[in-house]
Amino acid sequence: MEDVTLTIPTGTILLRDARPGDLDAILGLLADDPVSASRGDANRPEDRPAYERAFEAIDADPAQDLLVAESADGDVLGTMQLTLIPGLARVGALRMQIEAVRVRSDQRSSGIGSAMIRWAMEVAPERGAALVQLTSDAARVDAHRFYERLGFTASHVGFKYRV
Amino acid sequence: MEDVTLTIPTGTILLRDARPGDLDAILGLLADDPVSASRGDANRPEDRPAYERAFEAIDADPAQDLLVAESADGDVLGTMQLTLIPGLARVGALRMQIEAVRVRSDQRSSGIGSAMIRWAMEVAPERGAALVQLTSDAARVDAHRFYERLGFTASHVGFKYRV
Repeated sequence: MEDVTLTIPTGTILLRDARPGDLDAILGLLADDPVSASRGDANRPEDRPAYERAFEAIDADPAQDLLVAESADGDVLGTMQLTLIPGLARVGALRMQIEAVRVRSDQRSSGIGSAMIRWAMEVAPERGAALVQLTSDAARVDAHRFYERLGFTASHVGFKYRV
Repeated sequence: MEDVTLTIPTGTILLRDARPGDLDAILGLLADDPVSASRGDANRPEDRPAYERAFEAIDADPAQDLLVAESADGDVLGTMQLTLIPGLARVGALRMQIEAVRVRSDQRSSGIGSAMIRWAMEVAPERGAALVQLTSDAARVDAHRFYERLGFTASHVGFKYRV
């Protein structure tokens, strides 16, 4: 996608496609998050090849947009992944799915997360999506309030099965 | 994918890729479901072009598998859609997402649904997926018990935003 400048209370951030050079920063955001860390995302050196393969798979798939939010100083402060999923349900609605939303811990409540999500909600129809969907770990109670304030409805239960 | 024969208590069903000629039957399954019907999936003639476009988009996307479960008589008794989504989280786990699981109302509790979902859980690692995920409308209490019996954990809240 083209770079986009988002306004936050303290200024602006740049939302852009993630590049291979952003991988360290993105893995830092995952490891920095207690829920992700509990699932194994501890940014261990031995996991590096798996993350690199995943980055390449995301990059090669036109349905995926892995994005980073960058400060004026070039620091990666946030990330999210968008996926476009065609489907028959809801009169053939194309869905935009949001995964892996993370904001650097010292930047929480800075408006970066809401700026990223609001932007996704705005561009969804331009990309042909009639529905935006995401799941959030049941432990993230603050995140649930955040998504409801932005206009999402907590209408579903999200099930996971680890192979 | 290749056709696969699944065993159910009353015999077997064939699980195979959906073909354009299955569209009527699949739309019948959606319209037959009160939750889907409440979201607009009433199989109205004027909605047909939107469904056909969606079917083509699913068919053209190698990350999507729209499947039907067919009886020995050639009747479509069930459907589900599988999507493979690469991601960085969970040490670069490829996810298999299940959407739009439907079984014909006169075939509920016949074992078709569990045979389809169990099969997806089994083939997920063969396709490189480390996680199988789905969301289910909060109103579908029976479905939640069903997924938990199959080994899924209701760990997430699913949020939707209609554009």
